Amino acid sequence: MPGETIKIGVVAPGSRIDRIVAERVEEIAAGLVSERAIEIHFHPQCFLASGHFAGDDAARAAAFLDIANDESFDALWFARGGYGACRMAETAIAQLAAVARTKLYLGYSDAGSLLAGLYKEGFPRLAHGPMPSDILRAGGAAAVKRALAYLIDRAPDALEASVSADTPTAAFNIAVLSHLLGTPLQPDLTGHVLMLEERAEYMYGIDRYLFHITSNPGIRRVAGIRLGRCSEIPENDPDFGQTEEEVTRHWCDVSGIPYLGRADIGHDVDNKVVPFGRPQAA
Amino acid sequence: MPGETIKIGVVAPGSRIDRIVAERVEEIAAGLVSERAIEIHFHPQCFLASGHFAGDDAARAAAFLDIANDESFDALWFARGGYGACRMAETAIAQLAAVARTKLYLGYSDAGSLLAGLYKEGFPRLAHGPMPSDILRAGGAAAVKRALAYLIDRAPDALEASVSADTPTAAFNIAVLSHLLGTPLQPDLTGHVLMLEERAEYMYGIDRYLFHITSNPGIRRVAGIRLGRCSEIPENDPDFGQTEEEVTRHWCDVSGIPYLGRADIGHDVDNKVVPFGRPQAA
Repeated sequence: MPGETIKIGVVAPGSRIDRIVAERVEEIAAGLVSERAIEIHFHPQCFLASGHFAGDDAARAAAFLDIANDESFDALWFARGGYGACRMAETAIAQLAAVARTKLYLGYSDAGSLLAGLYKEGFPRLAHGPMPSDILRAGGAAAVKRALAYLIDRAPDALEASVSADTPTAAFNIAVLSHLLGTPLQPDLTGHVLMLEERAEYMYGIDRYLFHITSNPGIRRVAGIRLGRCSEIPENDPDFGQTEEEVTRHWCDVSGIPYLGRADIGHDVDNKVVPFGRPQAA
Repeated sequence: MPGETIKIGVVAPGSRIDRIVAERVEEIAAGLVSERAIEIHFHPQCFLASGHFAGDDAARAAAFLDIANDESFDALWFARGGYGACRMAETAIAQLAAVARTKLYLGYSDAGSLLAGLYKEGFPRLAHGPMPSDILRAGGAAAVKRALAYLIDRAPDALEASVSADTPTAAFNIAVLSHLLGTPLQPDLTGHVLMLEERAEYMYGIDRYLFHITSNPGIRRVAGIRLGRCSEIPENDPDFGQTEEEVTRHWCDVSGIPYLGRADIGHDVDNKVVPFGRPQAA
């Protein structure tokens, strides 16, 4: 509602962020013209370091619950991907209170492990889209503004262009989805348009992941696959001989899953928002 | 039987090999002292090139069937790993004749996709162990001789030391097994000691694969996990902070799978033979 304050909590279930990320995102939020006041709270856990992770598994789960179970927050925004959400997702999801179900969760990449588990639990407001850490990319302000426009107003122009009220959607990083298959975090994507993106995987690895994903009986019930951007693919020796789109078409042909074309998502500043399920009202 | 000729057919379901591999393996075989004559036939398909693969999917499947369905061969030896077996495994396995069930199949790494699918189909003579391409490693002759000793005589000293008649075993590359989970190639490993090895994966990637593997309901029915060697692990930034054994213990703890210690397998010349199921008579 106009006049209300939107309160967004940021946690890092995988890798940590530096303070500069928080500062630059807060600056952008402060400069936004909106009918609502915006308050962004970066949970102190975002800046912890424990080996590869933003704090140990218990610290990351606790921070997630601090925001998710606090009724004063309207949204939980994942700070960054990296790696680690799958290590705490089941524990954290098991401790969610009823109020956690009312808020919006936004992120992508490694955060897909939590989005998957929450979608499986029937959470109605989940979306794949930019994160605070995207501010570090060249032109990253556009990605952060897009995420904020979705977090605050569910701005329709933040959405991936093929998203419509006709068909439910979901979006994942290819490697992350592969690692969720057959685990308690795998959601039912029957009838969904599944959008997939990847970064920094060898083409043979993308091929092998798509074999795995399209061979899964649950995934075979999707309405179709759209391929997002696959960026920073390392050189293969010998050359793999097929592009990511050829590989995706191959596995769609083999599995009988319709290939629906490209999706406007990826590890980049143009990454658009894809709701889990159907488009959500603010 | 003494006096008989053992005939071994070599095919490459993933990546190709050079002629020098065949020449050097044939030299070693010619120098072996055995009660049986040995004939090794490298299928011409081993030397084909189609992008990443030793010939296209159809050529690799056809070569596999040429050897597997030919009653004159006693064993099918996978030439090399690399990548590609998962692309042709289902098609090829569906066309196997009854005679294919009588022979021994030996290989590891990418060949695990075929070993898995064959084990699922109840093939009784499958083993994880050295391949012809191991001859290119420093000291590789030892690995090839070990494989031949198993192929020809089921030599007990070729076996991984913990293998016994008491408990069935199976062995896989970690990434390969992860990609098989939930596909039609996933075998039932209930009650098996599962040995796992890896090469050239980041430690965070090994951790994520072990999350995936140990979360799988089928894998949770194994008797326990033994960890083989994880070699050539790229440096992680930041340092992952845990060794491969700590990571394996972690996921065994989380999943309730017994951790049984180390296994003498890996992408190296010391890689011992692990039968699928119980030790096999010659």
